[in-house]
Amino acid sequence: MPNPTAAFIVIGDEVLSGRTRDANLQFLATTLGERGISLNEVRVIQDDHEEIRGTVRDLSKKYDIVFTSGGIGPTHDDITADGVAAAFDVSIDVRDDARAILVAHYEKTDFELNEARLRMARIPEGATLIDNPVSSAPGFRIENVHVCAGVPRIFQAMVLAVLPGLATGSLVLSHSVRIERPEGEIAGLLGKIATAHPTLSIGSYPFNEPSGMGSNIVIRGTEKANVLAAASQIERAFEL
Amino acid sequence: MPNPTAAFIVIGDEVLSGRTRDANLQFLATTLGERGISLNEVRVIQDDHEEIRGTVRDLSKKYDIVFTSGGIGPTHDDITADGVAAAFDVSIDVRDDARAILVAHYEKTDFELNEARLRMARIPEGATLIDNPVSSAPGFRIENVHVCAGVPRIFQAMVLAVLPGLATGSLVLSHSVRIERPEGEIAGLLGKIATAHPTLSIGSYPFNEPSGMGSNIVIRGTEKANVLAAASQIERAFEL
Repeated sequence: MPNPTAAFIVIGDEVLSGRTRDANLQFLATTLGERGISLNEVRVIQDDHEEIRGTVRDLSKKYDIVFTSGGIGPTHDDITADGVAAAFDVSIDVRDDARAILVAHYEKTDFELNEARLRMARIPEGATLIDNPVSSAPGFRIENVHVCAGVPRIFQAMVLAVLPGLATGSLVLSHSVRIERPEGEIAGLLGKIATAHPTLSIGSYPFNEPSGMGSNIVIRGTEKANVLAAASQIERAFEL
Repeated sequence: MPNPTAAFIVIGDEVLSGRTRDANLQFLATTLGERGISLNEVRVIQDDHEEIRGTVRDLSKKYDIVFTSGGIGPTHDDITADGVAAAFDVSIDVRDDARAILVAHYEKTDFELNEARLRMARIPEGATLIDNPVSSAPGFRIENVHVCAGVPRIFQAMVLAVLPGLATGSLVLSHSVRIERPEGEIAGLLGKIATAHPTLSIGSYPFNEPSGMGSNIVIRGTEKANVLAAASQIERAFEL
């Protein structure tokens, strides 16, 4: 059976403007990969209701699992929950279970649960809450979409919280071979080896360092014996 | 008139696997922003013909300008040019002008223009070449899509090469106000100020540092007077 597939939607004008760099993609890719889930697509979109609605709807159909990051805080530009509710055509309002979590949290602080903060208890109908051990305001899962905070520490905690409930696949093993010759010199033979191993993904990632040009060949597959066989074939072919 | 819009398609399994981080998004976002072009969407997709074809086709219709990075080298996994040709339903083959560039380049090196390297002269019918001052193998533009290399130094050179030919917009000015109070404390008033400035984009980006919680408020707009007015209104509102 093929591995489960996943997509990641980064909701944030600040990444698109170049002001900040996304810090969550690499963590998500690696963490899902370790469970045999293939991250197949990432989209960075604007804080815009229609974009969020359309992207969530499309990717939730296209992939087994979807994660979103960003836009679930207390400010006016936090509009993710409404966009996700619209994607599934369900209503959204402050929900008692989410409110209770916020009430319990703010009782322990010097701050009050004001109207702005109560926005963080707005949860689409039918969604399941995702625990936030850092700052309490929950994320949520609706259908196959996991709506998480953008702050990396909270995003990571939320991903780890839902991970045990996700479908898993065969672990994809990765093996890297460094060849210190230009890509154009190795491409012909490498292509033939790739064709001979249709169950493996063999990628070539060139580097150009002061010491010289070359390429890292990355062999990925679920069968260890096949991955190692291709690696040793590549090493022999290029006399490494 | 609204600013021209742009999208960026990162073609690369290695970013999706978490093995490498994209290094081009921030450069592209900033460079386009300085010309008044809004980067509105980024997609990271697999080295897959159908994904490339469909994504290029969809985004070339949705946005004024599209850039792609990756997949135009000499190895078997470099399939971007074919996917782009398919997106526009045009043929693709080794083209004389691109071949001449490679011939001239390899005559100056110790390497030969072999069959693999000649793949880099495969250019879709009707496309215009994009100069590659680093390693000569050209990128190309077809319709509104600019197909560039993934290696950051080459990507940057190609973007700068096509920049003078792009439509420009009004420069979006950005002004940042740091407020050392939790987002939930400032959200109500901030939302009212945002509503009062419909021509501006006002975003709140929380931070949580050892010294305390707070938020950076980023005000973006094309009219300097409006941006500064909103900034000073925010500073007064929060007694900064």
